[in-house]
Amino acid sequence: MECARGCGNAADLLIKSVDPAFFLKLSSVARRAIEAELTGGLVTENKAASGFDPVTTADRAAERALRALIEQHYPDHGIWGEEYGLTRGASPIRWSLDPVDGTRALICGLPSWAILVGLIEDGRHVAGMIDLPALSETLIGHGGVTTRNGAIMRTSSCALLSEARLATTDASLFSASEAAGFERVRQAARVTRFGLDALGYARIATGDIDLVIESGLKPHDYDALVAVVRGAGGVIGNWSGGAELGGGDVVAAASQPLYDEAVALLAS
Amino acid sequence: MECARGCGNAADLLIKSVDPAFFLKLSSVARRAIEAELTGGLVTENKAASGFDPVTTADRAAERALRALIEQHYPDHGIWGEEYGLTRGASPIRWSLDPVDGTRALICGLPSWAILVGLIEDGRHVAGMIDLPALSETLIGHGGVTTRNGAIMRTSSCALLSEARLATTDASLFSASEAAGFERVRQAARVTRFGLDALGYARIATGDIDLVIESGLKPHDYDALVAVVRGAGGVIGNWSGGAELGGGDVVAAASQPLYDEAVALLAS
Repeated sequence: MECARGCGNAADLLIKSVDPAFFLKLSSVARRAIEAELTGGLVTENKAASGFDPVTTADRAAERALRALIEQHYPDHGIWGEEYGLTRGASPIRWSLDPVDGTRALICGLPSWAILVGLIEDGRHVAGMIDLPALSETLIGHGGVTTRNGAIMRTSSCALLSEARLATTDASLFSASEAAGFERVRQAARVTRFGLDALGYARIATGDIDLVIESGLKPHDYDALVAVVRGAGGVIGNWSGGAELGGGDVVAAASQPLYDEAVALLAS
Repeated sequence: MECARGCGNAADLLIKSVDPAFFLKLSSVARRAIEAELTGGLVTENKAASGFDPVTTADRAAERALRALIEQHYPDHGIWGEEYGLTRGASPIRWSLDPVDGTRALICGLPSWAILVGLIEDGRHVAGMIDLPALSETLIGHGGVTTRNGAIMRTSSCALLSEARLATTDASLFSASEAAGFERVRQAARVTRFGLDALGYARIATGDIDLVIESGLKPHDYDALVAVVRGAGGVIGNWSGGAELGGGDVVAAASQPLYDEAVALLAS
């Protein structure tokens, strides 16, 4: 059982299985696979029966590269990837892969797309990587510490919504009641930014954004973010104040008071 | 009198006054001024009586640097800057300066902020620069041609809204009737991105985004964009199909048919 702050004793944050340097290797092979597809001319398909849910040849090539490297080093680990599904699902250690988070950004030539890798042990989010190739940034949360390109990161510690920089990817994705709650928070926050996907959570960890509120996220969207946000001293939980993210409703904040203030306003 | 496409004979696009290389000098001095402020720790003030309209020491330092360089080389030219107002307003040649477009993005650690410089001769937008320091990109529209870091750019030529990648900075800034029009376009477009400020227009010129729809823009927001979009073969005009942008309602598109389709839907 996790709490929103990743609280618990240090042993909870000990990672039995994987060295942080391995995440850099994962970044390297995925970036190379994506770069090759971009150079060759990206092919985009629509996954959705109605609407537009793009997947590209880069998504698939990157997930194959990530899977191959994980299986070479950790043949017993489970892998759950957005494009190729679940392998060795019974393993207590599971990798969660979103080879290109923000495919819409990628096909619009925008730099916010990310390679997301989460590591889950016995149901706990023990490590994660938000890799931002277009910005030359690699954030890794591991062992209760978050780094960007090797430098330790801390959130802003912002504790007041009236001073907070808020972000969400697409406010039109909210249900009517969610939209009303988000609007209450937006009115109270200092400034709001849109369209960031995982970059918003990365910016919480680097102290540049204070609050991200989203809904409808899938495990592949959030599994990598948890250890990055918590390792920088941030809080990530659901809209009701709990740590369980399975409902896809996520609030990430630079501090516990800010998280609590946002959650109270979302519910009111 | 301009048309949305910047049509007219070649003489209309001839720039009497300024060499394109001068824009690179402007980029250089403004970037240096901003970098110094970022290194020294940015100070943000709120310009708005109510709400939040941020201006930073970087905005002001960059405008001073731009003004000094222009006055050194072109002492007769008019200058209209967002932070320091109008100088030599009677000159037929006028520089329009937004030293940091996307200050909200800058203070959130996001890469979409831009240095915007427009050049207006006898009321015509003859040249412009969208300089994106965090992305190491400088787009210059000059003499009817747009370049990025020296390479000639063309729009995607996308001519169908159902295939178009749409962007707007903040849909909550629209009035109720504008929001209804925008929503009709959004429903018809393939994918929508938010929060881009001038980067959206830059991505039209580079062929990565096909349509940008905004309202409430000030001359400093759009003066630099016009020559960049048109020089790449794009169209920029108002929500009613005309070229006059003074009302602040702007539609920029990769092609004339796409512009026309968007304008028809906004009005319907």
